[in-house]
Amino acid sequence: MTVRVGVVGLSATGSWASYAHLPALRAVEGFEVRALATSSPESAQAAAEAYGVPLAFSSVEELARCDEVDLVVVAVKVPHHRELVLEALSAEKPVLCEWPLANGVAEAAELASAAEGKHAYVGFQGTAAPAVRYLQDLIADGFVGELVSTSLIATAGPWGGPVGNRTEYLLDKSNGATLLSIVFGHLVDSFSYIVGDLADLNATTGIRRPTVLNTDSGEFVTATAEDEIVVTGTLTNGAIASLHLRGMNDHSSKLIWEINGTEGHLRIDGTGGTLANPVTIRGARGDDVLSELPVPDGYDHHADLVGSPAHAVAHAYDRLRLDLNGGSKQAPDFAHGLLRHRLLDAIERAAETGSRQCIQGQ
Amino acid sequence: MTVRVGVVGLSATGSWASYAHLPALRAVEGFEVRALATSSPESAQAAAEAYGVPLAFSSVEELARCDEVDLVVVAVKVPHHRELVLEALSAEKPVLCEWPLANGVAEAAELASAAEGKHAYVGFQGTAAPAVRYLQDLIADGFVGELVSTSLIATAGPWGGPVGNRTEYLLDKSNGATLLSIVFGHLVDSFSYIVGDLADLNATTGIRRPTVLNTDSGEFVTATAEDEIVVTGTLTNGAIASLHLRGMNDHSSKLIWEINGTEGHLRIDGTGGTLANPVTIRGARGDDVLSELPVPDGYDHHADLVGSPAHAVAHAYDRLRLDLNGGSKQAPDFAHGLLRHRLLDAIERAAETGSRQCIQGQ
Repeated sequence: MTVRVGVVGLSATGSWASYAHLPALRAVEGFEVRALATSSPESAQAAAEAYGVPLAFSSVEELARCDEVDLVVVAVKVPHHRELVLEALSAEKPVLCEWPLANGVAEAAELASAAEGKHAYVGFQGTAAPAVRYLQDLIADGFVGELVSTSLIATAGPWGGPVGNRTEYLLDKSNGATLLSIVFGHLVDSFSYIVGDLADLNATTGIRRPTVLNTDSGEFVTATAEDEIVVTGTLTNGAIASLHLRGMNDHSSKLIWEINGTEGHLRIDGTGGTLANPVTIRGARGDDVLSELPVPDGYDHHADLVGSPAHAVAHAYDRLRLDLNGGSKQAPDFAHGLLRHRLLDAIERAAETGSRQCIQGQ
Repeated sequence: MTVRVGVVGLSATGSWASYAHLPALRAVEGFEVRALATSSPESAQAAAEAYGVPLAFSSVEELARCDEVDLVVVAVKVPHHRELVLEALSAEKPVLCEWPLANGVAEAAELASAAEGKHAYVGFQGTAAPAVRYLQDLIADGFVGELVSTSLIATAGPWGGPVGNRTEYLLDKSNGATLLSIVFGHLVDSFSYIVGDLADLNATTGIRRPTVLNTDSGEFVTATAEDEIVVTGTLTNGAIASLHLRGMNDHSSKLIWEINGTEGHLRIDGTGGTLANPVTIRGARGDDVLSELPVPDGYDHHADLVGSPAHAVAHAYDRLRLDLNGGSKQAPDFAHGLLRHRLLDAIERAAETGSRQCIQGQ
């Protein structure tokens, strides 16, 4: 059965929806982009023409209640998630909401509660990426033996600046779309999927570049969202973990990740600040030399999308299709999203208070 | 004026003194190894013959009170430092004591107090190494601009095992010669010399391999010293820092260090778990590509020792000679050693309590 999708946020002038979701939905069998909604009738019409989408709406209510829409995809700025998601849920439609699910943990709890018993999914595409699934299998199959420790260093913009008009809102912490919520959220979700969840943590965060240039306006902007995040702690399996995520830097390593076990070692080098971006995996056991472990055949169903943000998203839609059609439970749901919001909340509390936080129910 | 040195711990069967101090002292002008002391007349005589040292003693008291000894070098296991150092100080002789200065902060405070107004130095050779001095100059000269953040991952044995008869004592925390005190102590001293001192910190530590093989005895040994240390915090200059030091692993990166500033970036790759070992420095500013920055001429006075543990130690003796002869204040003294012991103590407290520790007087 084809899932007819209505996308909220598919702007003709380009957006995450247009360069990640649209090509992914077109690559994955069983989906059809039937409708879109943007903020005005004019922009909706322009997007419908630009992308060849049959139905254009200027309100999510119309989109969600349209009989020709089976799934509502919410891919707009975080501050709008709550309203749009509640609208989709009240129309009794399955919803996929981009990560971060909500603007803070209270809102995430509200949405998770509203979504109970319904099909409500969160856009953690990282765990669907072929390399991430392969890494998860390597660890689960005992490649490194018992996990000893793991260290990760990553870099992601635009926090630390400069920004443009479209990205300036990311520097304002009150919008809930920060280095912590977006990048660290994605990163720690994939990280935990592979090596296990944090049982306790300490955190150090900071705003090291409080003023950055908006290159569109020529004005200097004040950042209230952190551009440095370090989290350390113990995983539920006992391994010692550290993650250091810094804001934009052209020369810093994009992603270095070491996974150390009693029997072997994995080293992952990435091309972007999350594990949804292409990575190189190297590994060694015993007396072996560290050597590349290419992702085996069978993991990548969308090799033509490698290097594009649609690559991981397409695999996430594969997973979602199985859940929607076959009743499997693979796609991360709102309850999972709430757990991750609680983790980010614990990180903020740890950074503010300087006190180790125990993580419940991760 | 030649400084006549008496070395405690120069064993004929090989020791840190024999493969680091002896070649260093022979390479550096202005020093002469005049005497040694070991634990018995027989072993002292054997060492004197093996190394061609004129005077052999089986007690530090004799060595320290010998008129032909101007400087007492204490290079034995940590538990013996206190007694030997106090003996040298009571003989009114300048002393160089290997790091860790003492078995714990209380003992370090006692030694620092006893050394007040005297020539008493601690063996932090890392800060004398050419690459470390060059890095310090690069940062001080503004290569990276204002420091933003810095992340370091390193690996060092034998913690995490296996061990031999000579190294087994390192696994027993009560001996004060641990991954934290030895390796992390050296590492954080060089690190702080280059990028600045920690103002506050959190720590996560663990013993992930509590049982390791002694390959000499064939017995399994229980470790009480940590084999995993993560320290994060804020430097006094505001930069966000993380350091993850893990125990022995053949495949893990020996040392990766990123130093990120407003104007540039440095990346250091090392061949050992401390910065006294050979490193490769790469850097970039603005639109430059990250490229190697070889240590310029003028930093390395003992290029023939590169790759040997004597390399950094020889430079430390250069520095010490200036202090002893010329009255300069370059070599790290016991007061500095006490500060580092206090830092390690704060790390242990942070790990135990989960609470951020403010560092005083670093």
